[in-house]
Amino acid sequence: MEGISTKEQLVIAGRSFQSRLLLGTGKFGSYLQMSQALEASGCQIVTVSLRRVEIGENKRKEDILSFIDTEKYLVVVNTSGAMDAEEAVRIAKIAAYGGLPKWIKLEIHPDPRYLLPDPVETLKATQLLVKDDFVVLPYINADPVIAKRLEEAGAAAVMPLGSPIGSMRGIETKAQIEIIIEQANVPVIVDAGIGKPSHAAMAMEMGADGVLINTAIAIANDPCKMAKAFKMAIEAGRMAFEFGTDEISRLAVPTSPIESFL
Amino acid sequence: MEGISTKEQLVIAGRSFQSRLLLGTGKFGSYLQMSQALEASGCQIVTVSLRRVEIGENKRKEDILSFIDTEKYLVVVNTSGAMDAEEAVRIAKIAAYGGLPKWIKLEIHPDPRYLLPDPVETLKATQLLVKDDFVVLPYINADPVIAKRLEEAGAAAVMPLGSPIGSMRGIETKAQIEIIIEQANVPVIVDAGIGKPSHAAMAMEMGADGVLINTAIAIANDPCKMAKAFKMAIEAGRMAFEFGTDEISRLAVPTSPIESFL
Amino acid sequence: MEGISTKEQLVIAGRSFQSRLLLGTGKFGSYLQMSQALEASGCQIVTVSLRRVEIGENKRKEDILSFIDTEKYLVVVNTSGAMDAEEAVRIAKIAAYGGLPKWIKLEIHPDPRYLLPDPVETLKATQLLVKDDFVVLPYINADPVIAKRLEEAGAAAVMPLGSPIGSMRGIETKAQIEIIIEQANVPVIVDAGIGKPSHAAMAMEMGADGVLINTAIAIANDPCKMAKAFKMAIEAGRMAFEFGTDEISRLAVPTSPIESFL
Amino acid sequence: MEGISTKEQLVIAGRSFQSRLLLGTGKFGSYLQMSQALEASGCQIVTVSLRRVEIGENKRKEDILSFIDTEKYLVVVNTSGAMDAEEAVRIAKIAAYGGLPKWIKLEIHPDPRYLLPDPVETLKATQLLVKDDFVVLPYINADPVIAKRLEEAGAAAVMPLGSPIGSMRGIETKAQIEIIIEQANVPVIVDAGIGKPSHAAMAMEMGADGVLINTAIAIANDPCKMAKAFKMAIEAGRMAFEFGTDEISRLAVPTSPIESFL
Repeated sequence: MEGISTKEQLVIAGRSFQSRLLLGTGKFGSYLQMSQALEASGCQIVTVSLRRVEIGENKRKEDILSFIDTEKYLVVVNTSGAMDAEEAVRIAKIAAYGGLPKWIKLEIHPDPRYLLPDPVETLKATQLLVKDDFVVLPYINADPVIAKRLEEAGAAAVMPLGSPIGSMRGIETKAQIEIIIEQANVPVIVDAGIGKPSHAAMAMEMGADGVLINTAIAIANDPCKMAKAFKMAIEAGRMAFEFGTDEISRLAVPTSPIESFL
Repeated sequence: MEGISTKEQLVIAGRSFQSRLLLGTGKFGSYLQMSQALEASGCQIVTVSLRRVEIGENKRKEDILSFIDTEKYLVVVNTSGAMDAEEAVRIAKIAAYGGLPKWIKLEIHPDPRYLLPDPVETLKATQLLVKDDFVVLPYINADPVIAKRLEEAGAAAVMPLGSPIGSMRGIETKAQIEIIIEQANVPVIVDAGIGKPSHAAMAMEMGADGVLINTAIAIANDPCKMAKAFKMAIEAGRMAFEFGTDEISRLAVPTSPIESFL
Repeated sequence: MEGISTKEQLVIAGRSFQSRLLLGTGKFGSYLQMSQALEASGCQIVTVSLRRVEIGENKRKEDILSFIDTEKYLVVVNTSGAMDAEEAVRIAKIAAYGGLPKWIKLEIHPDPRYLLPDPVETLKATQLLVKDDFVVLPYINADPVIAKRLEEAGAAAVMPLGSPIGSMRGIETKAQIEIIIEQANVPVIVDAGIGKPSHAAMAMEMGADGVLINTAIAIANDPCKMAKAFKMAIEAGRMAFEFGTDEISRLAVPTSPIESFL
Repeated sequence: MEGISTKEQLVIAGRSFQSRLLLGTGKFGSYLQMSQALEASGCQIVTVSLRRVEIGENKRKEDILSFIDTEKYLVVVNTSGAMDAEEAVRIAKIAAYGGLPKWIKLEIHPDPRYLLPDPVETLKATQLLVKDDFVVLPYINADPVIAKRLEEAGAAAVMPLGSPIGSMRGIETKAQIEIIIEQANVPVIVDAGIGKPSHAAMAMEMGADGVLINTAIAIANDPCKMAKAFKMAIEAGRMAFEFGTDEISRLAVPTSPIESFL
């Protein structure tokens, strides 16, 4: 069992998870393919856009939730598409009203080009939703000050971006995420921009608590294989964080004895 | 079985290997610890400095080879400590004379500070050893021209460095290794400088055929866990290379529908 | 005259400046040394901490302003030390009351370790100060959304950080600053972290409108020479932006004819 | 006079140069444009492909050398197009026979795609040309061992590449060039790949002795302005190397007093 290779588990809002991979559900070729990738990834938290969820009586058959075993996965609705705090809060309430868990991934991005998060509206929405007993997971720029303020406002984790959503360019905000990790008292989950297993491993080696992946798996030639690859890379990175070493030297250090040989 | 997750195997000199991780044996706390790390890594090729091998009659009990199951692992002697072609060839011949396989990892590094390889002597030694039916695996700088010349001289693989031996700084020579991979007709195995699982995954995502690790595993707080971590990261990187996608965009690409929501 | 090498001038709040270098006045060995560096830098905007300025009747002789020719330099007070919007606004008002120009460099950094700016308080203070007819130059994280909101709130420029104040690590936030520049309708001035002339040149090549330097000049072995070096590098970078080319190729493109020679 | 801003001059083979910029002459729109860029760059060493030079009696009027004042500039022929040592030596001899200075820029690149230099042939040609009293400036990969061997063979300088010729991608080989600079007893001149003034400034800040530019100036929208820009950036970088400081901190270091203000 690989899941027990690491010492510590990810704990968010008092709930423990063996997997440190969170999976988004957009862009898959089909819901069936998505559900197979979920399985292969070993993830336990799945984010879903409310847009895709059927709420109320007039459910169609092909609802995304019929492809996600809610006994096995924690479904977290995201507020993608929200332009400000008010819209985000409304989405969260509809989801809760529809019987979904009161966990919310907060995404407020007024700019349609880079989908970068708005720190002011995100803080406002977090304050409102925490008051209403939601577990709030805000998507943020890699800004250590806003991370701290969200934590103080009661966010259950912070989710700084590596690079723009869907860009798959990796962790371009390394220096700032390192400061966020150093200062955080809640889990830090790197969100957006992770395009390769090496990016995910690097996030874990830096000490991130989790990683959210979507595009890189969903649009891969073989999403199941990629899901598995990310699962392994994340465990590998976490193991290196827990059991490795940080000594970095500029000089070469011989691994073989190099005294004059013969 | 993870070993069968990828489509292709590593083939060197006509011999197939399921694992793409080569493990060096320097710097471990003990031979016992080393042998456990070998097991955990899943590697099938092990490099050993001739200095550590007992040749001839006067073997001590504590020979390194008593800790390596030569049925299971291909033992490849390295020429670490050789200052020029002549010394390297001599080491190779002693090893073969002592009954070791005629596979040789060529390391010729006159400079004791950074242990960087000498391209001229390395080419000369390769020519001599190939003529003598050795399978030659030369350690080189990330120099596409010397890689090509070694291939033409009959080298069975080329082993460009990521950064100085033992420095664990990762792949600082990315642009040049990409050219080597693009032009090579023999396996390209990234050697030296790999300090983290993410570095190893990145090498595989770039299309490298294998990775040699030593220091990062040997000096880890828990070498067995790190060996496992590298095993997983290498498989993850290879899977991404085979089954992923290369589309990289500068703009954000929404993973959730963002049409105005309500 | 180097100042006329470039086509365009920096224009902030309707006022034109030939120099794109803004100079901070902290950390110099003496006020005399500072005033010489100002001269050597060719700058026209100087930022000063209110703490160092003597306001009111009980002026000491050694006031920093006696070393800055206010006919020649625009003195902009910064709000360094302010923990929130209220404190920042108070500093701005004291400065204006003391007869200083109504230009204010807004710095609100509750965290004493990395001195990173607070986006929420910065936005609030900008709104208040703009209403009070200040020309507001806010120091921000490299966050394109907050940059846009500040512009909409009436900021006269935005000043994203390259890396933490005084760290001299250069532009670690390149990808995000590129987005800020692409989207801005006010000048973008890179602030904090610029440690070398090459960093400043790079900012200008990216299309930044100006650069603020302090530590790298103030603590140099020869501040005047460094001031001159930054002056030249900034002009060089700007000239490359205006007169260069952006074609970047991965392949080599021969500069000399390479048809078979003889 | 900017030329006297720095303390030390570049000295190659006993000859002193005020300028640290070497300019290549390929790719310009016209010889006239080229000669104006030479003037604007302040350079004192100009490299020319022998192909472009008219040797012997049947000179055409439009010879490149009629546009280069050989009293003012040292003309150094390059061996561009040479596939091996023999061809390079032949080119050098023809140039000398034609009355050109016995300075030769050695370029041996068998691969037409990336134009990367061949270390073995370059070493061989250097040995032959040094014996024949040429001042030899070899273009090399960023390989510290080959740099050392060339120095020992009598090369007057070494010219490691930053990235492939004409690619303008900057110094991708930073770590290795730093080692070359640390170990060299002859001038280190970064050649190939320099595309922006910031790249050139960075080379100088690292301690390089000079920089060779061609494409970035020749194909700029305004080659004269770009020549000037590189001139300034190189001086700026050199001044930072001589008069700056190297203290780099990860923490923020306040430039303004931040004790609680009021």
